[in-house]
Amino acid sequence: MNRLPASFLPSLALDPQSESPMYRQIYEWFRRAIVDGQVRPGQRVPSTRNLAAELKISRIPVFNAYEQLCAEGYLETFVGAGTCVARSIPDEKLRPPVRRGPSGSRKSAESTGPRRISHRGTAFTNFPPQSWLNSLGAFRVSLPALDEFPIRIWSKLVARHSRTLHREIMGYGDAMGHLPFREAVAHYLATARGVRCKSSQILVTTGSQQALQICAQVLLDPKDCVAIEEPGYPGARQAFLSAGSRLIPVRVDDEGIKVTELTGCGDDLRAVYITPSHQYPLGMTMSATRRMQLLNWAAHSGTWIIEDDYDSEYRFESRPIVSLQGLDNCARVIYIGTFSKVLFPALRLGYVVLPEDLVHAFSAYRDASDIFSSTLYQAVLTDFIQEGHFARHLRRMRMLYMERRNMLVRTIDAQLGKKLEVVGAEAGMHLVTLLPRGVDDSAIARKAAERGISVMPLSSCYLGRPVRNGLVLGYGGASPPQIGDAMHELKKLIQH
Amino acid sequence: MNRLPASFLPSLALDPQSESPMYRQIYEWFRRAIVDGQVRPGQRVPSTRNLAAELKISRIPVFNAYEQLCAEGYLETFVGAGTCVARSIPDEKLRPPVRRGPSGSRKSAESTGPRRISHRGTAFTNFPPQSWLNSLGAFRVSLPALDEFPIRIWSKLVARHSRTLHREIMGYGDAMGHLPFREAVAHYLATARGVRCKSSQILVTTGSQQALQICAQVLLDPKDCVAIEEPGYPGARQAFLSAGSRLIPVRVDDEGIKVTELTGCGDDLRAVYITPSHQYPLGMTMSATRRMQLLNWAAHSGTWIIEDDYDSEYRFESRPIVSLQGLDNCARVIYIGTFSKVLFPALRLGYVVLPEDLVHAFSAYRDASDIFSSTLYQAVLTDFIQEGHFARHLRRMRMLYMERRNMLVRTIDAQLGKKLEVVGAEAGMHLVTLLPRGVDDSAIARKAAERGISVMPLSSCYLGRPVRNGLVLGYGGASPPQIGDAMHELKKLIQH
Repeated sequence: MNRLPASFLPSLALDPQSESPMYRQIYEWFRRAIVDGQVRPGQRVPSTRNLAAELKISRIPVFNAYEQLCAEGYLETFVGAGTCVARSIPDEKLRPPVRRGPSGSRKSAESTGPRRISHRGTAFTNFPPQSWLNSLGAFRVSLPALDEFPIRIWSKLVARHSRTLHREIMGYGDAMGHLPFREAVAHYLATARGVRCKSSQILVTTGSQQALQICAQVLLDPKDCVAIEEPGYPGARQAFLSAGSRLIPVRVDDEGIKVTELTGCGDDLRAVYITPSHQYPLGMTMSATRRMQLLNWAAHSGTWIIEDDYDSEYRFESRPIVSLQGLDNCARVIYIGTFSKVLFPALRLGYVVLPEDLVHAFSAYRDASDIFSSTLYQAVLTDFIQEGHFARHLRRMRMLYMERRNMLVRTIDAQLGKKLEVVGAEAGMHLVTLLPRGVDDSAIARKAAERGISVMPLSSCYLGRPVRNGLVLGYGGASPPQIGDAMHELKKLIQH
Repeated sequence: MNRLPASFLPSLALDPQSESPMYRQIYEWFRRAIVDGQVRPGQRVPSTRNLAAELKISRIPVFNAYEQLCAEGYLETFVGAGTCVARSIPDEKLRPPVRRGPSGSRKSAESTGPRRISHRGTAFTNFPPQSWLNSLGAFRVSLPALDEFPIRIWSKLVARHSRTLHREIMGYGDAMGHLPFREAVAHYLATARGVRCKSSQILVTTGSQQALQICAQVLLDPKDCVAIEEPGYPGARQAFLSAGSRLIPVRVDDEGIKVTELTGCGDDLRAVYITPSHQYPLGMTMSATRRMQLLNWAAHSGTWIIEDDYDSEYRFESRPIVSLQGLDNCARVIYIGTFSKVLFPALRLGYVVLPEDLVHAFSAYRDASDIFSSTLYQAVLTDFIQEGHFARHLRRMRMLYMERRNMLVRTIDAQLGKKLEVVGAEAGMHLVTLLPRGVDDSAIARKAAERGISVMPLSSCYLGRPVRNGLVLGYGGASPPQIGDAMHELKKLIQH
């Protein structure tokens, strides 16, 4: 260590072991000393020759440090008068306060101003922790069978596009998405989901969550009301809250959301969020009658319908339910889908199908949010769809999930038949087991998470007071042995 | 074509050429006829046997269609009484209106409700078109030299991670980002940019635009004020507007933003957005004096400083300017950076360095926005940084951009020396050429875009009345021949 005498300037210690080059250490030291007020504006600093001699190093790093400090305005040099701390540096009172006390502790509000964030920012920090999301173990809702994904085919396609990255794949892309991908999605939605749209109506997103967030921001002003299903999807609640919307829970029954209750929601109601193909979390399908009532009401009241079709590719006892969007003659439905559940979550690709008159606003808002979605995976997925891998994967997964669903239902019946009623097992990648009244589903979820089991408490899906307690069990990503083991553990927690 | 007699039901035509299977065509036809009111609730439909005979097809597709229609609630079957349209289907008045007239035309507001979107949604549709963003040709601002990117090394790393996609890379990731990547970024920022942070303070984003948007939403309530540089970065304006913020333009001079003008902005001022290392678009560096004044003012007034360090890796005549964040003792600075400019835009990776007490709110908001960033590229970029490719690429690009900058300055001087004054050419990937007063930079940009040249008008960077007109020329992605050709074209447009 070379030290500058303390009598002259505060101690400057160079660390020859540091990753940081010497000039940088000298620069940093001066900068810090000036900011912290250890040297004063106008105070002379040693010449490069003297400082180098005192530190027993070459003049070059000292010279480089001074040059940088002068360039940035910390030091100034006068011909014949040497170098001094710039006289324009503010004096003590106008200098930023120095944090005293242990590092990381915050200064009191007396010496520095308030640390205020937005109301929505504060609201988000107040959500209860969702312990079940910390585990990717058995029953994690929305997690597909990652082990069954055709990785070899996928990585061949990734390699194909990575080897020859061209400008279109590397540069700035369209806020609406990569055109060939939007065309592939439009065709898929038309044939598989009965969605009526052109590729120009498709906005590619990073998943259904972003789709929801953009819907909330573009359609709703702060304090506008949105009706959501009760119980319903917690992610949608978050998205609407982030836009400052007021949430109105509307009950669901065996036919889906109770449309008649919407009419009493008042004039501030701007949108209704629904999962008609496979209600989240209870799993029922919206009936034809309700669909027509809802479309009629939306058309006449001028309300938007946000249809979240998150996993309806998987339906075991009948054919997939055709989308509500396909019935809509008045361009009131905004249709949301995602590839997170049919492929894998880290893909970060989803989409919104927009009425034509909303395309411009959504596109501009997406541009302001995060410009566009990564192009590589859009190009890879286009090939994956067009070469038939996607349809094949869906067929395989439908069989696999049906087997897993059957095994889970059998295991529940065998182990806990009298205690647990199963609902919503006709489709998708999760089912709900209702618990006896009085059993605290959140407590079970918390204890399960400690054992690496991810079960979502049904009560967390209610905005108001939960009508029923239960456990939402995702079986998509759980292998039969995992299902068996995890149910064995859950049984102990429930019977305890 | 097999037709059902019109006397019985509206004409049902099957198309044997269609991609859609027959059962699906029958299903669709009935669904449409019911929704559009061509058949009435309770009306009998032909038996599967009769319909199959009339259409001259097998009974199986008819049976499948009826089964699906019954399952979804469009038809109902009574033992002995055959099948009819479900009597619960709403009658004419409660059925969704049918759009008449040419397809695509919207119904008048008399028969359907208003098509109202949010104020911010409307605001975004009112922005003037930015014609210069339609081209990736010469002078596109922010576009790096894509042709010089080490694609072979990169695609080798992509292949490495794609071949062995494991659960962590495919499943749901952390809203804050992939931990090894955050550690690599923290280390890079500490050594290269003088940022003082732990990896736990780093939130990975899809780029600086998303970082800005999250800052705006978490820090500012609607109608709160944010000070922005005048002229300044249009993308930041969009992000703050999307949160409903009020923008206060504050002039910049040779030392950066005029801090003394901030003090007069009133109590509603919650944040200030700045580009201290390389002012966007004018290119000056914020002086040491201003930095200290700004930090002092922010600490005492309780204002957040959003530091956007978008391209300061490239500085040609001196060493990179150390970040403002590194001088901040009061945890007031939120530091934003991106890999879009140093690597490539479609990577969609950027980051925010947060004061510790903001981590929770930002993380929760990110989760509600779009959950997390794609993990594959985070893992690939971690290796790219740790194996030294990133540092090597930065060094190569610094030389390359300096050459391109020099060539562009020489070309401007040679061709238009008397007309164009060049400012802000010390760093980064763009410079500004000021135009003689009275020359309309937007008109030039529009005409240039028609010729495939992307120049941004300086006037578009002003929120208020533009003080100067000019052209912002990005040279990062423009090869020397492109620079020569494009300047030749621009000369004609300017002299015209």
